[in-house]
Amino acid sequence: MYYIGIDLGGTNIAAGIVDEKGTVIRKDSIPTFREREYPEILKDMAMLALKLIEDEGLSLEDIKSIGIGSPGIADNKNGILIYANNLKFRNVPMREEIQKYIDLPVYIENDANCAALAESVAGAAKDAEHSITITLGTGVGSGVIINKRLYSGFNGAGAEIGHMTIIVDGKQCTCGRRGCWEVYASATALIEQAKEAAKSNPDSMINKLVEGDLSRLNAKIPFDAARQGDKTAETVVKRYIKYIGEGITNVINIFYPQVIVIGGGISKEGEYLLKPLRQYVYDNVYAKDVQQTDIRIAEMGNDAGIVGAAMLGR
Amino acid sequence: MYYIGIDLGGTNIAAGIVDEKGTVIRKDSIPTFREREYPEILKDMAMLALKLIEDEGLSLEDIKSIGIGSPGIADNKNGILIYANNLKFRNVPMREEIQKYIDLPVYIENDANCAALAESVAGAAKDAEHSITITLGTGVGSGVIINKRLYSGFNGAGAEIGHMTIIVDGKQCTCGRRGCWEVYASATALIEQAKEAAKSNPDSMINKLVEGDLSRLNAKIPFDAARQGDKTAETVVKRYIKYIGEGITNVINIFYPQVIVIGGGISKEGEYLLKPLRQYVYDNVYAKDVQQTDIRIAEMGNDAGIVGAAMLGR
Repeated sequence: MYYIGIDLGGTNIAAGIVDEKGTVIRKDSIPTFREREYPEILKDMAMLALKLIEDEGLSLEDIKSIGIGSPGIADNKNGILIYANNLKFRNVPMREEIQKYIDLPVYIENDANCAALAESVAGAAKDAEHSITITLGTGVGSGVIINKRLYSGFNGAGAEIGHMTIIVDGKQCTCGRRGCWEVYASATALIEQAKEAAKSNPDSMINKLVEGDLSRLNAKIPFDAARQGDKTAETVVKRYIKYIGEGITNVINIFYPQVIVIGGGISKEGEYLLKPLRQYVYDNVYAKDVQQTDIRIAEMGNDAGIVGAAMLGR
Repeated sequence: MYYIGIDLGGTNIAAGIVDEKGTVIRKDSIPTFREREYPEILKDMAMLALKLIEDEGLSLEDIKSIGIGSPGIADNKNGILIYANNLKFRNVPMREEIQKYIDLPVYIENDANCAALAESVAGAAKDAEHSITITLGTGVGSGVIINKRLYSGFNGAGAEIGHMTIIVDGKQCTCGRRGCWEVYASATALIEQAKEAAKSNPDSMINKLVEGDLSRLNAKIPFDAARQGDKTAETVVKRYIKYIGEGITNVINIFYPQVIVIGGGISKEGEYLLKPLRQYVYDNVYAKDVQQTDIRIAEMGNDAGIVGAAMLGR
């Protein structure tokens, strides 16, 4: 049997046919055109799924289910996407809409949860019963796997670890609260932190790497400058890793999973990020005399969304 | 069938015979004399269990298992208490020691986890699949119930939510980190906060209630003074509830359990605590358009430890 996974993004809709082991055997994508009304977007998603099945020479009988990974808060029990900010979706009956075109079970989940499921089934946390995937991107996404299954609370709205405050009354978060982990540990936050540091330190290599135009700053530049020994960048990166480490230490004290997987753009820094991060975390966890959580880089890359969504039906 | 639950504390060892429903049918207690070596303390625990069985007119065949709730970090898989600060215990083979005297299965767990299990089986969270019990006492204890079972990570050291930082680089915690929730939201923390406020506000009723001797301050006094309209105490209590609320909001964003149970001495303040706490939390949670977590006062009182420990074997 095969599974269809659909990764609904603000720019593109990616979909794939996935086997039992989490391997993508065919994939395709189309633009989202996110300003449209939801019935049109969901019709396109269904058509893309049907096209994949046909292109692969399969029939509906070969497919067990369709899974959708979406930004926002998903109510899988009722098949409804409650809220997705960057799609302007509110209480969208996704299951019902897809089933207008395809008579298969439809599962929906938050995209960060799908990424965590993908890492658990086929990626960096394959060997772990309990794992948590943290995605350091525009925000801080997270998915919690307990006993190899997604956990997101009784209403599907949990596992928003990026919205745990680490500094009460700290910086404003888009969620309305102040001091959320996301405001200090996302790629967006790193860019902000590097920008401020570059402004106060005109000699910093960061300014050279953006050719004097700080609007060109991305999350890779402070790491590049730090690797080359730029003191300002080293300070920025060290403090940023501390912020990541504070949140990861919290996650360990709370969950103690076997594995924490770090994904998102920042994870491309690999061991340069992980080595000091591990040290910070293991120095700070509550329980020192126990077997410790492994901290690893994500392995699923761009397919995480498709694979995780597909595996919802497994 | 019946279960024995033993609640090992720094001052007393309480034990009880508990039925399938979590009702204590007989209980007894003895002093811990915690300066002793562990084999002596564990022998006393076994003898207390045997005495209860005899007193109730039962035999070993009527008892399914023995559960022990202990401060510190428990490794239930191997039957070892890894660490307990206030008992000076380190890698104590509790299961083995008890089984020298009683041939029954022995389970061990952290005491805050036992309290959470007791509330889940027979207390305030009886109706919830997912619940979290937060104990506001000397520290901030916590236990996590997922699908009606205790969750404490792959090594048993998790669910230490009191050691989630809410203020990076904040006040020193006994765990070695800075800014843990416990440092702001425990009863100990409230006493500290009230003491400082009373010193800077000599007219505050707090000073009258302790008859000028701030070493007599307990966690009830600031609440008593606030109820009577003392402005200083009102400010202290409001800020303290904010600290509790920040942590509870984090817990909801992370877990979204159906029920959060508040236990410990502070929970005796009842609705005077819960009403503003609920308002703070529901104003701040990430997901506003979903069914919300219920916040309730613990119901199991002093029996929580015995019942939770007993239910480990169920």
